[in-house]
Amino acid sequence: MKKKGPPVDHEVNAGVNVSVGDMPPEEFRKYGHQLVDWVADYLQNIERYPVLPNVLPGDVRRSLPASPPEDGETMDKILADVDRLIIPGMTHWNHPRFHAYFNSSASSPGILAEFLSAALNGNAMVWQSGPAVTELEEVTVDWLRQMLGLPADFWGMILDTASTSTLHAVVAARESLADLNMREQGLTGRKDIPRLRLYTSEFAHSSVEKAMMTLGLGLGSVCKIPVDEQFRMRPDALAEAIARDRHSGMRPFCVVATVGTTSVTSIDPIPAIADICEREGLWLHVDAAYGGTAAIIPEMRSILAGCERADSLVVNPHKWMFVPVDLSILYTRRPKILRQAFSLVPEYLRTAHDDVARNLMDYGVPLGRRFRALKLWFVLRYFGVNGLANRLREHLRIAQSFKSWIEADPEFELLAPVHFGAICFRAHPPGVDDENQLDSLNERLLNAVNERRDMFLSHTKLGRTYALRMVIGHLRTEEVHAKKAWELILQELKRLRV
Amino acid sequence: MKKKGPPVDHEVNAGVNVSVGDMPPEEFRKYGHQLVDWVADYLQNIERYPVLPNVLPGDVRRSLPASPPEDGETMDKILADVDRLIIPGMTHWNHPRFHAYFNSSASSPGILAEFLSAALNGNAMVWQSGPAVTELEEVTVDWLRQMLGLPADFWGMILDTASTSTLHAVVAARESLADLNMREQGLTGRKDIPRLRLYTSEFAHSSVEKAMMTLGLGLGSVCKIPVDEQFRMRPDALAEAIARDRHSGMRPFCVVATVGTTSVTSIDPIPAIADICEREGLWLHVDAAYGGTAAIIPEMRSILAGCERADSLVVNPHKWMFVPVDLSILYTRRPKILRQAFSLVPEYLRTAHDDVARNLMDYGVPLGRRFRALKLWFVLRYFGVNGLANRLREHLRIAQSFKSWIEADPEFELLAPVHFGAICFRAHPPGVDDENQLDSLNERLLNAVNERRDMFLSHTKLGRTYALRMVIGHLRTEEVHAKKAWELILQELKRLRV
Repeated sequence: MKKKGPPVDHEVNAGVNVSVGDMPPEEFRKYGHQLVDWVADYLQNIERYPVLPNVLPGDVRRSLPASPPEDGETMDKILADVDRLIIPGMTHWNHPRFHAYFNSSASSPGILAEFLSAALNGNAMVWQSGPAVTELEEVTVDWLRQMLGLPADFWGMILDTASTSTLHAVVAARESLADLNMREQGLTGRKDIPRLRLYTSEFAHSSVEKAMMTLGLGLGSVCKIPVDEQFRMRPDALAEAIARDRHSGMRPFCVVATVGTTSVTSIDPIPAIADICEREGLWLHVDAAYGGTAAIIPEMRSILAGCERADSLVVNPHKWMFVPVDLSILYTRRPKILRQAFSLVPEYLRTAHDDVARNLMDYGVPLGRRFRALKLWFVLRYFGVNGLANRLREHLRIAQSFKSWIEADPEFELLAPVHFGAICFRAHPPGVDDENQLDSLNERLLNAVNERRDMFLSHTKLGRTYALRMVIGHLRTEEVHAKKAWELILQELKRLRV
Repeated sequence: MKKKGPPVDHEVNAGVNVSVGDMPPEEFRKYGHQLVDWVADYLQNIERYPVLPNVLPGDVRRSLPASPPEDGETMDKILADVDRLIIPGMTHWNHPRFHAYFNSSASSPGILAEFLSAALNGNAMVWQSGPAVTELEEVTVDWLRQMLGLPADFWGMILDTASTSTLHAVVAARESLADLNMREQGLTGRKDIPRLRLYTSEFAHSSVEKAMMTLGLGLGSVCKIPVDEQFRMRPDALAEAIARDRHSGMRPFCVVATVGTTSVTSIDPIPAIADICEREGLWLHVDAAYGGTAAIIPEMRSILAGCERADSLVVNPHKWMFVPVDLSILYTRRPKILRQAFSLVPEYLRTAHDDVARNLMDYGVPLGRRFRALKLWFVLRYFGVNGLANRLREHLRIAQSFKSWIEADPEFELLAPVHFGAICFRAHPPGVDDENQLDSLNERLLNAVNERRDMFLSHTKLGRTYALRMVIGHLRTEEVHAKKAWELILQELKRLRV
């Protein structure tokens, strides 16, 4: 560092005494380089860390001071505390044996972009406050639209998470009921508003119900449609439910279908559901937060068949597209409705460009909008369409291997079709047929596996059946990791059965 | 770089050909170091960039390919495009002559923390998915609570922006009406729900109205209370409006007061408003997103007087606390109500720790929760309480200087008291007294100043009066920058008046 200029060690150590302004530039440079090496080592040696930390609730909190420091502290001390206090309390989402929930991988180009994004600190409230932030968002979101095979009339925007995207979709669905004049009048103090009903499968993500709670539409207004033997929404049951609700005076307004449900990655029959939505005049929102990404692979594109008829669709590049959290995209064919629901321009945000430029604040709740598009741009460019498709294909291949290991083992049972990178299964030793006993065995197996801390598995319930969920979708996961995970599961089952 | 291992130039250049996995570690190291130097230079030379870019709507978009690359591209090419295509389209929020809106400064410790946060890719959905992410959030949020002088019964959580925080507060306010059973029943299909009224001043931020639109409560349910001559909500008018509404059958449920309004940084009389809220049984939410930060300065703590009686309060460390966007904190004395409004735990998110650990997903819309607390921790520790207070004090001092320059100049007029770092003023040359003419002159002055691109000013309306807003709140802004800004304003006025 000294090569770059005059000796600055004094200032570096005395940074805490500077009473105005930022950290001295040479100090930033020093610790920036130090951090790059730290992160490079971390990523390179990630397998030396336990996936799950060996801490109990409250341990990290108790290790930290109860009050903030009166005077500034050195970066040396802060970074040492990262190693000492934070890292041992992390669940390592970047570990290749993270097989729980859905993966989220921070790829290197994504990490570098986030670093740059933090430094630029861009903010696309209005076009003027971030022209490149606004337009790179529009461009990258459109690139991904093309990669997914969605038609050109799908316009998209970046939000934080799928929960937020789905909430925005439900708001747009409600706003599309033009006669209600939601924006001005709202729902209260009126006697003319029938119960607004939303339909989704019993396997839909909890965010659908959370949106309905949040928006004051109520959990009781969510009609959960039963699924078929492959956990897909039954269109006949949907049509019946709508007819029944209309008959009893309710007003259906929205259907949320899923491509890749959270529990079991089932794919609702979108074309049949779209038929019903068109016939009934309902807003169709598709939750493709996880599964949609697979459509990047040309031979998998059919999973989004029918989605071109959806009113809105959410896909999460921060799940299976190697973009660090958070980055969710809400696409809609009806951006004017979204704008009508959310646009509100106070005087202090008016600009000379309002007639010719798109101000992204007009399409959602958050006013401040950080420069998330940068990481999407870096990731799409660095890997390229083919590079992403190859990586996804490899995950699908490993998942099929894992499936074959289950099928070949008489002690285990596959519980659902494997469409993507998630496998639902359970231990089912020959002769053990009591369901309660099986549930208990599998719950103990999950806990035993996770208590080893060198892999992380999660679970779900399929109907009343306790199921283990093994997900393969981390950028750094290779077949050898899945194999090791399988061995650990076998070992733990053996120990439990002794 | 070569010192660290075998020659890797071939792999570095061939990274695009690797068909699985991440960027090779040595390539990450190389570009990481390159980026650190780039960012260090950027921050050091920020004044060489124009604050406002010389681009028109569509310019950046047109400079980018219409479709994503089929094959991966090199980091060299991507980083070159950052310089060539992105930087010239940035509004530089990190420029010390950014005087528009409210500032957001990315301090060096904040930038370093964001880099680390992206690499760790932590996610505090549930405690188990991020013990350190969860607990560091609770600890840092509590540190800030102490710094602001809020009582120990205020619990807080991190969200993206104040708009989102205020939306959550309004949901909690609605949920607190226990008899309505919002969570289950919602607002539709019932004839027993009177109009739910929310009160806020005519100077409140637009996010209050946006929350009401989003939640289906309607703009028409927002009652805007008039302000006094210092732009503060009039408690007498509030009490009258509540009485009038009750008389006409409406149901008041929430008051949103502001400490530091966006237009003019006025401070609503919180103690008097809290009296009314307690008497009337209304939820009091305080928007201290900008102004609250000043309470870190001991002698300014009184600006939050009365806030200890609020039900919820939002403050944004990403505004005037040198934390990069985004990071907003919602405090509430009634976390149980917030949890009641938002908690919904599907089977696949249940963990063994649910009885003993706090799962932050239970308190808001987003399920995924990135590791934002890390940047708050770095900033609070690096600067320390005193270091932050000193920096804020200096901004207040410069703002008072700027105010004195306006007062000493017969061509200008101060339009509002200066409580914090924002000054509302206008050119008002002697003899020009037609209000339309003055509005037009000041609008032209704003445009002329911003068209120079070496400073960025924004505007508002105070009643019918067009006002210029000069904000001093960037970490890197010194008196010399404010002085230069003042000179530029004088120059442009002179040119317009010739």
